[in-house]
Amino acid sequence: MTAYPQMTAAERTAEYACVQQKFEELKARNLKLNMARGKPGKAQLDLVSDIFGFMNKPEDYVSDGIDVRNYGDLSGLPAAKRLFAEILGCQPEQVFVGGNASLQLMYDTISKACTHGMLHSPRPWCKEPVVKFLCPSPGYDRHFKVTESFGFQLVTIPMTDEGPDMDAVEKAIQDPCVKGMWNVPKYSNPDGIIYSAETIRRIAAMKPAAPDFLLMWDNAYCIHEFEGDYVEFPDILSECAKYGNEDMVFEFASTSKVTLPGGGISCFACSEANMAYMEKLLTVQIISFDKVNQQRHVLYLKNKAHALELMKRHAAVLGPKFRAVVDVLEREIAPLGIARWQRPKGGYFVSLYAMPGTAKRTWELCKEAGVTLTNAGATYPYGKDPEDSNIRIAPSLPPVEELEQAIEVLCTCLKLSALEVLGV
Amino acid sequence: MTAYPQMTAAERTAEYACVQQKFEELKARNLKLNMARGKPGKAQLDLVSDIFGFMNKPEDYVSDGIDVRNYGDLSGLPAAKRLFAEILGCQPEQVFVGGNASLQLMYDTISKACTHGMLHSPRPWCKEPVVKFLCPSPGYDRHFKVTESFGFQLVTIPMTDEGPDMDAVEKAIQDPCVKGMWNVPKYSNPDGIIYSAETIRRIAAMKPAAPDFLLMWDNAYCIHEFEGDYVEFPDILSECAKYGNEDMVFEFASTSKVTLPGGGISCFACSEANMAYMEKLLTVQIISFDKVNQQRHVLYLKNKAHALELMKRHAAVLGPKFRAVVDVLEREIAPLGIARWQRPKGGYFVSLYAMPGTAKRTWELCKEAGVTLTNAGATYPYGKDPEDSNIRIAPSLPPVEELEQAIEVLCTCLKLSALEVLGV
Repeated sequence: MTAYPQMTAAERTAEYACVQQKFEELKARNLKLNMARGKPGKAQLDLVSDIFGFMNKPEDYVSDGIDVRNYGDLSGLPAAKRLFAEILGCQPEQVFVGGNASLQLMYDTISKACTHGMLHSPRPWCKEPVVKFLCPSPGYDRHFKVTESFGFQLVTIPMTDEGPDMDAVEKAIQDPCVKGMWNVPKYSNPDGIIYSAETIRRIAAMKPAAPDFLLMWDNAYCIHEFEGDYVEFPDILSECAKYGNEDMVFEFASTSKVTLPGGGISCFACSEANMAYMEKLLTVQIISFDKVNQQRHVLYLKNKAHALELMKRHAAVLGPKFRAVVDVLEREIAPLGIARWQRPKGGYFVSLYAMPGTAKRTWELCKEAGVTLTNAGATYPYGKDPEDSNIRIAPSLPPVEELEQAIEVLCTCLKLSALEVLGV
Repeated sequence: MTAYPQMTAAERTAEYACVQQKFEELKARNLKLNMARGKPGKAQLDLVSDIFGFMNKPEDYVSDGIDVRNYGDLSGLPAAKRLFAEILGCQPEQVFVGGNASLQLMYDTISKACTHGMLHSPRPWCKEPVVKFLCPSPGYDRHFKVTESFGFQLVTIPMTDEGPDMDAVEKAIQDPCVKGMWNVPKYSNPDGIIYSAETIRRIAAMKPAAPDFLLMWDNAYCIHEFEGDYVEFPDILSECAKYGNEDMVFEFASTSKVTLPGGGISCFACSEANMAYMEKLLTVQIISFDKVNQQRHVLYLKNKAHALELMKRHAAVLGPKFRAVVDVLEREIAPLGIARWQRPKGGYFVSLYAMPGTAKRTWELCKEAGVTLTNAGATYPYGKDPEDSNIRIAPSLPPVEELEQAIEVLCTCLKLSALEVLGV
């Protein structure tokens, strides 16, 4: 197969007619498939639903002498702190255990920065004329939305194969209006990149002009390999502490993609000084998050080793889905020279870069054929991809046989939109 | 027994010596008893722990076609909305189902008013030079703390036997800086007062100067009778709507004192216009609260009638505790003319008014004798009771036999502090 850009106009016209016919056939199937969000499929939910069998004996109700059913213990069960600390490599006393959503803890941290200020803030951020926030892009749309919602200016930082472009970051943080930065450091959303040791060192050693710079470290995929063995990852809290930056970082994690997306537990981890500050604010807001569910998770997951075993079982479901996506792309699209993509070993996404100027059009065509993708542009600040190129594929929800159909649609639409741009 | 104020100095001196000796005896018991918070006791937790036996069949995981285990459905399960709507008397589509803490939903509503503004706000409250909030007092310390934490000026409104002094409220709301008002309308915290129909009518018909006045309606004890039958209570949403004030009110409730304090579910209820506005903000913050626990509660509580049956079983535990408190007070303190108190039929508190100027001292003496009470003054804005009189008694946690000892201590301390003030 000749690559599209190398084809003659006549060849492209013939190819277009052929792909167009294929597209019409696919549309006639009346598909309704969704690859929009990193939503686990039913097989993964069933895999963990034995978690409901716990909490059935009176001794299950007590953890470290605490009756988990009652009010109290703002920062969570000590046993749940130990579990997260072991997984993240930090200390239990650095962990605050939350409810079912780490996104809520992230939002709340930003919200408190606005209303009350962070530990080292000269004033609450809502009193600042301008707040800017660094957004390594492509990145997680929900992160960007949080900071957009509070009226911050979103500053795009390009992603490299080793994480955010640190030259750009180090330059940007000289502006005292730059108050923080989003990160998904392991299996970044959507690129699936693991930040390199050198990137992490440079992040930990940053000297931002803002005294209250907030490093948002969303370790969403900390144990989420679907291909190969668990990959060790440095503890960002002690990395930052090495450079006197212990109060700069808030790390987040959850069991949303370990146990249940709608019913897991979450945490943030931070320095002891930050913890004391946050607890003073949080005690006004909540008596504690759901300790019953924390205890259920402690009993079910036990420890890091046991959690990693469970992740192997998730991998057995997820791995074939990711391979299906990438295999079809390699077979159908690679020879055409119209797109490139990552081949991640963990996380929840395949990040595809279509020919510039074709992502939105591809998204529309997929929608026309019954396949829902994450909005084109969503992985960039304000939902605007300057290249109109990145498409985030989330293969976790559909069963493999549906996924194969969805990818067939995607490939066909990629071809159509590329041909439209190249001219037919 | 002569009332203390009517005693001669010599009689008081004799009485003081006698009470002082009793106090020393009680101290020698080395008690460690807690009547500080409205925390259910172990018997109540055990009463409801069969809730953990639900969610054990695949069909339990699905509610109205929704897999409760997965992401999605921001405003909660329709079945959970129906349950709360039936209990509160509002419409299911007016209900947003939250996590384990209604306090968190209240905090979050106030927080969003500050950062984003409410539906009818000319600007976010953080841009207002001054925000004032009405605090019917005595009231719930955690309410007052939330608004204090955001830097609002707390305005004390006296409580009457029918609820807040509405003359004072109607005057106060002419100030456009007055942006809202706290309420615990049924079995108020701590007085145990049920707002009268006329009070509710006047509240619903208010014409505040602030276009975004926020009526915080914490219906914490909506089905929490411990004496006598369930008392019907008007739906504040439709009451407000009668006067064109449908967007003025946010109602809150939870199952914290129906099922489990640490692991229940909560909700807010508001007009459809407010709901649309809040969902737009909340979708940035969370994908949904824990729908698994919502489903567990739907299966366990079933409907209002079934929930009321459960509340009868709570009443069988709580009733004797409240009677123990009030009986001892009537026997020991009533004849002395040094305190008065409410005799509530629901809620979680007995509100006691000691002789002015003696509440703090009574609290200290109790502490010395090993009995922890809610901080004296906590029921007033900024923790300052202008009369130094109100003491909130929370009899729910200790078993009756411990409670009797704790009340004995309290009575002794009330006597000592009254005698100190009267002169001995």
